[in-house]
Amino acid sequence: MGPFDLIVRNAKAVTAADVFTCDIGIRDGRIVAMAEGLEGAAREIDAAGRHVTPGGIDSHIHLDQPTGDGSVMADDFLSGTRSAACGGTTTVIPFACQQKGGTLREAVDDYHRRAEGKPLIDYAFHLIVTDPTPEVLTTELPQLIAEGYTSFKLYMTYDALKLDDRQILDTLSLARREGAMVMLHAENRDCIAWLTEKLLAAGHTAPRFHASSRPMLVEREATHRAIALAELIDVPILIVHVSGREALEQIRRAQGLGLKIYAETCPQYLFLTADSLGCDEGFEGAKCICSPPPRDAANQQVIWDGLENGSFAVLSSDHAPFRFDGPDGKRAHGVNASFDQIANGIPGVETRMALLWSEGVCTGRITPQRFVDLTSTQAARLYGLYPRKGTLAIGSDADLVIWDENLELILDNAMLHHNVDYTPYAGRRLTAWPALTLSRGEVVWDGTPQGTLGRGQFLPCDRPAPAMARRRHSELPL
Amino acid sequence: MGPFDLIVRNAKAVTAADVFTCDIGIRDGRIVAMAEGLEGAAREIDAAGRHVTPGGIDSHIHLDQPTGDGSVMADDFLSGTRSAACGGTTTVIPFACQQKGGTLREAVDDYHRRAEGKPLIDYAFHLIVTDPTPEVLTTELPQLIAEGYTSFKLYMTYDALKLDDRQILDTLSLARREGAMVMLHAENRDCIAWLTEKLLAAGHTAPRFHASSRPMLVEREATHRAIALAELIDVPILIVHVSGREALEQIRRAQGLGLKIYAETCPQYLFLTADSLGCDEGFEGAKCICSPPPRDAANQQVIWDGLENGSFAVLSSDHAPFRFDGPDGKRAHGVNASFDQIANGIPGVETRMALLWSEGVCTGRITPQRFVDLTSTQAARLYGLYPRKGTLAIGSDADLVIWDENLELILDNAMLHHNVDYTPYAGRRLTAWPALTLSRGEVVWDGTPQGTLGRGQFLPCDRPAPAMARRRHSELPL
Amino acid sequence: MGPFDLIVRNAKAVTAADVFTCDIGIRDGRIVAMAEGLEGAAREIDAAGRHVTPGGIDSHIHLDQPTGDGSVMADDFLSGTRSAACGGTTTVIPFACQQKGGTLREAVDDYHRRAEGKPLIDYAFHLIVTDPTPEVLTTELPQLIAEGYTSFKLYMTYDALKLDDRQILDTLSLARREGAMVMLHAENRDCIAWLTEKLLAAGHTAPRFHASSRPMLVEREATHRAIALAELIDVPILIVHVSGREALEQIRRAQGLGLKIYAETCPQYLFLTADSLGCDEGFEGAKCICSPPPRDAANQQVIWDGLENGSFAVLSSDHAPFRFDGPDGKRAHGVNASFDQIANGIPGVETRMALLWSEGVCTGRITPQRFVDLTSTQAARLYGLYPRKGTLAIGSDADLVIWDENLELILDNAMLHHNVDYTPYAGRRLTAWPALTLSRGEVVWDGTPQGTLGRGQFLPCDRPAPAMARRRHSELPL
Amino acid sequence: MGPFDLIVRNAKAVTAADVFTCDIGIRDGRIVAMAEGLEGAAREIDAAGRHVTPGGIDSHIHLDQPTGDGSVMADDFLSGTRSAACGGTTTVIPFACQQKGGTLREAVDDYHRRAEGKPLIDYAFHLIVTDPTPEVLTTELPQLIAEGYTSFKLYMTYDALKLDDRQILDTLSLARREGAMVMLHAENRDCIAWLTEKLLAAGHTAPRFHASSRPMLVEREATHRAIALAELIDVPILIVHVSGREALEQIRRAQGLGLKIYAETCPQYLFLTADSLGCDEGFEGAKCICSPPPRDAANQQVIWDGLENGSFAVLSSDHAPFRFDGPDGKRAHGVNASFDQIANGIPGVETRMALLWSEGVCTGRITPQRFVDLTSTQAARLYGLYPRKGTLAIGSDADLVIWDENLELILDNAMLHHNVDYTPYAGRRLTAWPALTLSRGEVVWDGTPQGTLGRGQFLPCDRPAPAMARRRHSELPL
Repeated sequence: MGPFDLIVRNAKAVTAADVFTCDIGIRDGRIVAMAEGLEGAAREIDAAGRHVTPGGIDSHIHLDQPTGDGSVMADDFLSGTRSAACGGTTTVIPFACQQKGGTLREAVDDYHRRAEGKPLIDYAFHLIVTDPTPEVLTTELPQLIAEGYTSFKLYMTYDALKLDDRQILDTLSLARREGAMVMLHAENRDCIAWLTEKLLAAGHTAPRFHASSRPMLVEREATHRAIALAELIDVPILIVHVSGREALEQIRRAQGLGLKIYAETCPQYLFLTADSLGCDEGFEGAKCICSPPPRDAANQQVIWDGLENGSFAVLSSDHAPFRFDGPDGKRAHGVNASFDQIANGIPGVETRMALLWSEGVCTGRITPQRFVDLTSTQAARLYGLYPRKGTLAIGSDADLVIWDENLELILDNAMLHHNVDYTPYAGRRLTAWPALTLSRGEVVWDGTPQGTLGRGQFLPCDRPAPAMARRRHSELPL
Repeated sequence: MGPFDLIVRNAKAVTAADVFTCDIGIRDGRIVAMAEGLEGAAREIDAAGRHVTPGGIDSHIHLDQPTGDGSVMADDFLSGTRSAACGGTTTVIPFACQQKGGTLREAVDDYHRRAEGKPLIDYAFHLIVTDPTPEVLTTELPQLIAEGYTSFKLYMTYDALKLDDRQILDTLSLARREGAMVMLHAENRDCIAWLTEKLLAAGHTAPRFHASSRPMLVEREATHRAIALAELIDVPILIVHVSGREALEQIRRAQGLGLKIYAETCPQYLFLTADSLGCDEGFEGAKCICSPPPRDAANQQVIWDGLENGSFAVLSSDHAPFRFDGPDGKRAHGVNASFDQIANGIPGVETRMALLWSEGVCTGRITPQRFVDLTSTQAARLYGLYPRKGTLAIGSDADLVIWDENLELILDNAMLHHNVDYTPYAGRRLTAWPALTLSRGEVVWDGTPQGTLGRGQFLPCDRPAPAMARRRHSELPL
Repeated sequence: MGPFDLIVRNAKAVTAADVFTCDIGIRDGRIVAMAEGLEGAAREIDAAGRHVTPGGIDSHIHLDQPTGDGSVMADDFLSGTRSAACGGTTTVIPFACQQKGGTLREAVDDYHRRAEGKPLIDYAFHLIVTDPTPEVLTTELPQLIAEGYTSFKLYMTYDALKLDDRQILDTLSLARREGAMVMLHAENRDCIAWLTEKLLAAGHTAPRFHASSRPMLVEREATHRAIALAELIDVPILIVHVSGREALEQIRRAQGLGLKIYAETCPQYLFLTADSLGCDEGFEGAKCICSPPPRDAANQQVIWDGLENGSFAVLSSDHAPFRFDGPDGKRAHGVNASFDQIANGIPGVETRMALLWSEGVCTGRITPQRFVDLTSTQAARLYGLYPRKGTLAIGSDADLVIWDENLELILDNAMLHHNVDYTPYAGRRLTAWPALTLSRGEVVWDGTPQGTLGRGQFLPCDRPAPAMARRRHSELPL
Repeated sequence: MGPFDLIVRNAKAVTAADVFTCDIGIRDGRIVAMAEGLEGAAREIDAAGRHVTPGGIDSHIHLDQPTGDGSVMADDFLSGTRSAACGGTTTVIPFACQQKGGTLREAVDDYHRRAEGKPLIDYAFHLIVTDPTPEVLTTELPQLIAEGYTSFKLYMTYDALKLDDRQILDTLSLARREGAMVMLHAENRDCIAWLTEKLLAAGHTAPRFHASSRPMLVEREATHRAIALAELIDVPILIVHVSGREALEQIRRAQGLGLKIYAETCPQYLFLTADSLGCDEGFEGAKCICSPPPRDAANQQVIWDGLENGSFAVLSSDHAPFRFDGPDGKRAHGVNASFDQIANGIPGVETRMALLWSEGVCTGRITPQRFVDLTSTQAARLYGLYPRKGTLAIGSDADLVIWDENLELILDNAMLHHNVDYTPYAGRRLTAWPALTLSRGEVVWDGTPQGTLGRGQFLPCDRPAPAMARRRHSELPL
């Protein structure tokens, strides 16, 4: 059966179901053998009994995305994918965002240009649909789906992005017909706008009032609504970045009724709280501004429980990189801009995997298998990359991570490879970090970033059909 | 203590708490004595041991309200109040509806003109706020509230009436500041519009598709959202015409958390079902078109349970009278108009009390006290008419009903006094009907309508303050 | 209509539904008139516009009940009823407790002997069924129910009292057939015994471990089970002394499904917490030992919410009086007995009404009407004393309380008239207290206890039939 | 790396996470290679692209277990394991049942004797603890757990088996200390006994009244109680044979709160209903008597939803084989015995896998991966057999099934190899059946049963430690 290009020897291989020890044989960038005592490779890497997981899929990440408000994303397809690889992620799925009035094709073309020649790891695109015109719904989206852009994100907030309920229904209906996967950002726009106005009018401008402007019920309401819309169309959806109990209760209720409501969460809801946004004085809290905002310790526990009990399908980073210092990041609207003027998002593509392995697996909160499921396998399935990506299996791409454990790292931004000048997790103690990352059998991280510029390939996505079998035929004429 | 103008002798008096036998002494239109063996009245009426309840308050009724779409409401302030009185209702609270672009003051003036010289019983006005401009919020509404227009209804659907969430927040916030009561019509406009478009496109135009266009989840979603908005402002609201389980579950959940979410239902959700809207053939089902649509038997049971266990505060009629035949009612858009072109609403002001007494009290489902609470007392409290209206108590207006029971009536439209040519409850067997209705001590129904044209008085409403004590101070700057 | 024996002039009369100003005319111990300007009484009391409520019914009170463990109840039918009257309670329903192996008739006879010549106010008896033999179920209980002992309490814990589930079913089935009302003490006996054994084995003997031995889930479990048993038989039940959220959630769920599950709570769950049971040192916490134990501030809020939103039918005292000092009360098993050896119960019959009026009504948490409903009317209905007791209505007994408000009392045991040497509420600030209590038109408290020894009458109870109409016929052969 | 004893070529291998195509290399009964293009085996089997799953683990099966009531189980360790193998199951975990008054050691010894020389496939034992004496808890169970009997089942019903709540707590506490897994049969014994007595007294003796004697709430109550007991001890448990919505809701609620409550269901709750128990006439319904009884179509859907959404960990058969005809099975107490005298249990070890593959996987209700998870992987983990059993992985036993699909089988008892004279699923259409079953690399079914008598090995079980990490430290002294 040999020869192999590479054998990863003595791996404690982890899939979403299993942990077992074997040698992994790789040829032409794919895993072709998992066995005891493999022989005959040009090159060998000794895992030495360490855990070897599939490379991470970060299915919620913003790279080089125009913000339209003067701030600039700090990571492009080079720094972003390098940072990902160094943190054990081997596939990213950033967003190609339609401009209102523009076409999706323009967005896709634009993003391909932005990516060109840069990525170190493989990538696909989610679309962001901001203007579901009849042309978009009847022509563009079906074509793009056929070409491998099979998932799209809809926003229920942000004026530049938001769809109203009817537009969401139109798009969900298209997704049902075409077998695409819809992600929803669920926060109630009007509530946020109203609260923001009141807060600013009261002189409450410090970063921490970002959290006050988006309380949990604003997310709960939109989550309930998103579920109702999906229920009406009878189509699966995925609720992105769920932050706490009230939203998760809505999701679990729907899941319990047999609806296919998938949920995603992010490290910020496990490791940050609203207190991370600081006090009334100072601008430091701007570093942790993201939406929904982190909540509190009780909600963190709810998220941990949800990771463990299967409520969540995916842990992504929602990497949205802005520099803290300088004129084009968090301070683009001034050195002490009011909370609503601060670029919204935090970096996290590089730290996602190690945070969850350290605090989830090493502490026994979740199994290694669940780690794989949350960081890689389910994203691959939901977004049509499986089985090429998302697992360690014969025929799959040789995207994998060898884990160093029992470390005593204090996380510091200097360790990271993004183009952001801070990490919200600075100072946190980690016990694990990727020793080595392989992308299609090539080393892209071994303590130092590796790999040729632009080696990353674009991944057209399949329709996630098997995951989307409908439970029942609605009686409504959809 | 005498003399009295009138003694109602040997009454089995019912309040929201009690049933007891007494004579009721009335002077100057008010109850001034309840006692054993009253003497000294100019006139006596022998209740002969029959139940005597407070006159009904129908707090959800449309009279002479422009529809803007070619149909005309069949009842004005004369026929509507006469019909009410004949059915045991002594107070109505119709709506003064702001036109978009117009002022509330214009609406109020217009409705006073419409009422002038006509009502046979007392009346107040709810406002309908369709255009909450800063002027409306900061000047008009505070003034009108001070003048006795202390409740208003907001719509989450109907393009001519609908507010968006932010407008609702603005109005709820005003209600909190001023101590007013907000009623919400909770259905998701976009879902209904989307479904309607799809149904029509599929040729589904028969009346019964009205129900298909407004499924339960459309109501559940808006109910959840309305509660979330009220929770954000921390202000009581009342959800009108709740039709079934899914919406009521949302309400009970909120009530259980200590939120002041009041709920109203109507006879159509106890006595009609979606089947009442007919089959694919014919137009007969148009008679039962109202929103939300009636559901099914299981949901009827849920509504009965909710009446009994205190989930509901109010049973109103949502009387919205349109004639079935002729050019200006249900057929205003043609003899077989598509469901979305059919005037929306059903008559019910005259039948509300007798339906609930027959099927609720006579069957033992609810107590006589609960009947009074649902048809009169709680409406009086919630809308600031208590204690003048809503009970049998010393000092209250002598608005009361003597009930005939053990009847064997088959309900027929010819028995009724509204100006509508049908009743959706035709053919139903009733066992009770008001024998006599007193309004401020004057007979307005004794088997024949009585009373001078225009004798009904306008009732300025108090702020329903005692019922609205806030549970906690929100941390948000509202 | 006069003359009257007594007129209470200028009363702000409160019923469970209404507040209105009137004069109250009393003759032969009954209310015979409520009116403006009554004349012709032998005696007048000027209420001077103060609130006048029905006298309280304390439907959960232990008087002179043998404990079987060496401790002695401090209050008999004299001190207990005097204390009640001074606190505004005019009816008590203590328990006649069957001894295992004994008959109910013996218990009833014994308790009548204990009461003889002592009560200052009227009283009825609940039975406690500890040994539901066929004889008890087929002969004794039907006879006793017919004689006016129409409610009984069953225990799910305490070895001397506990029934197993089958015995409970037998008794519920009897209650259904005979139309009696069953009260259930819902705590899981085995869990408590197991925890107690473990706590003692670990040397945890201080009073505060009483709370550790009966955590919330022990009550929740038994509450769920009690509801399931009642659901099986399809019979109303009342869960006594509900202490917090988890149990109340079970009850609200059942109520929402249309089951007739009534709930009672007590002042200890509004005003005490587990912290009231003290720290590891000292015995002071023994004063607050009762079952279920008080919980925490969050659970107190849940109980307040439940009082307001109608989840609870009754607020009783569960007065179980034991002296703190001396050889026969809390220290009957030694001056520092382990928590399981301390007499279980706290005094409260005199403070119940004033605590709820001060902290409920004066603060605006509940309306005066709800106060009356909770402290008097619903108990009268549920236990078959209505309309003789429980309201201010023509024909009802003239049991009433005139309230002094705007006081600045610091509660002190010296103010109270029970025979207990402490009150768990000592030091609490009260703003209201009964100025005067009438029992059947006679003053029993006007700042000083009044009334002839033994003037209180035994009240045979009706079957609470109207409240118990069954919702549906079970398909099971019950 | 070769040579292999056997290569299964061109397998569409399925694990709980993945589906991928490979050759499977087997040596010494274990899987040693999964790869493309394996070479060098003594023997090859061509899977020809068919699905290859891990062999089933039937973790709830009764073999040769004394019933104590005159009936005899039809299957012993020979016929039972043969039937299992023919249906694609390669591991069974029957029960060694303690006799009350006896020791667990006696039970274990007895069952080993019963098994001796018979099994065709591997087996472990669950213990049934019926008499948790101090000796059992402090000595026997710790020893037996150390020897590989790491799971035990407790009954909440059946007089010969039932533990009371305190005994359950004692045993759960032991399980927590020793890291064992406790299974609970959750039905309320007293309710069943009471209903049975009433049904029989009413002459309701037909088999269908078995279902009437165990309504859903009887299971729901015990499920809630079991969860509460586990919550008190803070130890994982598994609720066996969950039959419908009400019980599953309790379980999902607990799972949502982070409790480790695992759930099992069985094919009877997917494919049978209470109607399967027949009408009043005839005895045919006895064939489907099992506990809990099958429910109705709505509950079947709830179970399907629960299989899909992860509420359930395990689908077992609860094989409890009794012959329909003859003197020692269903008719042991007479040809028309009353329902409570009929041997309780149905056969199913052979049909479990094919029923779920046909109706679950082939219809698209669940994925092949979820099938593997439910029928094999999770049972292996929960009961300490993983990774030796439960998956297709390097190092695991070569227990696997090659599936024939697209069949048009009508299930008939003649096809089956148990020693029972009927199958409750007779007449059902199946589209899949195992073509071949390997046990440790040996063919045990290839259309004909194969394998040497007694080749099956006893499997000592590990403590299921990784799955049992405690979520929090209880504050109670457990």
